[in-house]
Amino acid sequence: MAAAAVALSNGSGGGGDSKAEFAEIYSRLKEEMLEDPAFEFTDESLQWIERMLDYNVLGGKCNRGLSVIDSYKTLKGVDVLRKEETFLACTLGWCIEWLQAYFLVLDDIMDNSQTRRGQPCWFRVPQVGLIAVNDGIILRNHISRILQRHFRGKPYYVDLIDLFNEVEFKTASGQLLDLITTHEGEKDLTKYNLNVHRRIVQYKTAYYSFYLPVACALLLSGENLDNFGDVKNILVEMGTYFQVQDDYLDCFGDPESIGKIGTDIEDYKCSWLVVQALEHADESQKGILLENYGKSDPESVAKVKDLYKELDLETAFHKYERESYNKLIADIEAQPSKAVQKVLMSFLEKIYKRQK
Amino acid sequence: MAAAAVALSNGSGGGGDSKAEFAEIYSRLKEEMLEDPAFEFTDESLQWIERMLDYNVLGGKCNRGLSVIDSYKTLKGVDVLRKEETFLACTLGWCIEWLQAYFLVLDDIMDNSQTRRGQPCWFRVPQVGLIAVNDGIILRNHISRILQRHFRGKPYYVDLIDLFNEVEFKTASGQLLDLITTHEGEKDLTKYNLNVHRRIVQYKTAYYSFYLPVACALLLSGENLDNFGDVKNILVEMGTYFQVQDDYLDCFGDPESIGKIGTDIEDYKCSWLVVQALEHADESQKGILLENYGKSDPESVAKVKDLYKELDLETAFHKYERESYNKLIADIEAQPSKAVQKVLMSFLEKIYKRQK
Ligand SMILES: [Mg+2]
Ligand SMILES: [Mg+2]
Ligand SMILES: [Mg+2]
Ligand SMILES: [Mg+2]
Ligand SMILES: [Mg+2]
Ligand SMILES: [Mg+2]
Repeated sequence: MAAAAVALSNGSGGGGDSKAEFAEIYSRLKEEMLEDPAFEFTDESLQWIERMLDYNVLGGKCNRGLSVIDSYKTLKGVDVLRKEETFLACTLGWCIEWLQAYFLVLDDIMDNSQTRRGQPCWFRVPQVGLIAVNDGIILRNHISRILQRHFRGKPYYVDLIDLFNEVEFKTASGQLLDLITTHEGEKDLTKYNLNVHRRIVQYKTAYYSFYLPVACALLLSGENLDNFGDVKNILVEMGTYFQVQDDYLDCFGDPESIGKIGTDIEDYKCSWLVVQALEHADESQKGILLENYGKSDPESVAKVKDLYKELDLETAFHKYERESYNKLIADIEAQPSKAVQKVLMSFLEKIYKRQK
Repeated sequence: MAAAAVALSNGSGGGGDSKAEFAEIYSRLKEEMLEDPAFEFTDESLQWIERMLDYNVLGGKCNRGLSVIDSYKTLKGVDVLRKEETFLACTLGWCIEWLQAYFLVLDDIMDNSQTRRGQPCWFRVPQVGLIAVNDGIILRNHISRILQRHFRGKPYYVDLIDLFNEVEFKTASGQLLDLITTHEGEKDLTKYNLNVHRRIVQYKTAYYSFYLPVACALLLSGENLDNFGDVKNILVEMGTYFQVQDDYLDCFGDPESIGKIGTDIEDYKCSWLVVQALEHADESQKGILLENYGKSDPESVAKVKDLYKELDLETAFHKYERESYNKLIADIEAQPSKAVQKVLMSFLEKIYKRQK
């Protein structure tokens, strides 16, 4: 619990009240997972699961989880929710944090990463290793257990399950695309293009990070998601925009602000920047890219960065940012519901022109 | 399709008709997965998924999947099902085969195994590697996609989803227990005992291999699973019995019949045999076990096997087998429904005194 409180006090989304409410629910959900009658826990397995949850579910900014509560309040047009409503909204928020933990634990294994949220990746912790694969599965299973326990009787239970299933499927499919595209790209960089980039980003990140929290809030409000296709598209668009920023900041951001040193060039990532560079480069510039992209020596990286500057990708990015923002504003204003507009605007404000 | 037909022609469960019906449905389900509108497939990702499915879902004996159809026929008291009923039963059967594929792909990664079903483990295939982790996830997600597509409108849809979720949770929890127990056991063999063994086996194998197929058939028949607690217990007991046989055959079976050379001793497995040995050994025999168990050199393995023979574990096993069988028969005969008795007896007959 202390850890959750600490993690959340550094968070950036949501009001102070939401954060405190939210942090409190974590301990309860964790306790429930440790007392699940569907399994006969041993002392060792209890300790393992508790440590694994604290290590992986906590420690993030909880923006996704907190935005369920904020969106739900906005949709209902209230500042304060009833106790039961708060609990349900926080519970869905934590389900998204559990989902995020699940994706990150497995992604770090597949990417052979070193650190995550300022500590070693879970699979690098001594004694853990590839047991982390099964821990990822357990994290995913906890979501189903939590939903069953707290939402089984609700009229929207089936929709909730279908929602999490569909979003997970999209994310795993986007992840596959990312993994095989990077393999292909290592052999032939020119396979990267804007359409490939858009698809990876949209499926791998946008659905679960942007659409899922709002969809949870809509279901809690008794809405039918079939009536919110435009909202889905807007949020997925925003998630794409967010990832383009991420790609930009990886190279041009201040490592102090973003909290890490970018390695997209070294890692052969299908980044928005390399896609733009491929599109705008002449033959000799393309040659520089093909020769230096994906190499880890500092000279190669510097040559790629110089080329990005030569091609003025900073200006291209700011143009993309402005156009993307204007398009999103127009789409949001076309929404019939003022409450929905407010929810979408609050997401957009959090990310527009962010430096970290 | 050819691969499925070939695989199934070597299978041992179910009638010839069931097998042919069953094999046909695979192609249809696979096609549906490759045309899922929830993702924009590229040519590369389509090829990847198709190859991954054929490699991992096919090639087993399909006993679990086939037993859904046979159990459903028995519960209904018919030899032939209507076309739609056949399709639904086969679809649930394939969902269990998909589930099995998902568990095996990930288990092989965690156990660092070499081969599976006579071919290299999926993660050992060139170009695959740890992408297999994500492929495991995709296999699991396919089950949700299949259930949603074909069962969304059924009155038992929620029960079906809850069933797969609960069984998956039990399996993953059993897997965790197995993984951490083996770690602990490597430091202190005496941590292994019959209760630890029973718990691992029951959760890791019995629920999904024995209970799940019958539970699927019961749901298809319109039954409420809450009324079948005894049936669940009997099937879990049978699954435990099956695994004890597996442990026994690993050491005492004919490698020709079981199709592999057992390595439980080398792998430090919490096998029924080592648990029995620990229970019956005197201090000096225990010393031999502690010194030689989990070592891969042939002399150590031979010393352990000699001790098993010295302790007459073959006789102990045959006694266990007989008692277990008698207990199961008595429990089955106490069942009020003749059809349910018949389903349970058909499972028991398939495994009693098996040599492979
Ligand atoms: Mg990564
Ligand atoms: Mg990755
Ligand atoms: Mg990045
Ligand atoms: Mg294994
Ligand atoms: Mg294993
Ligand atoms: Mg075995």
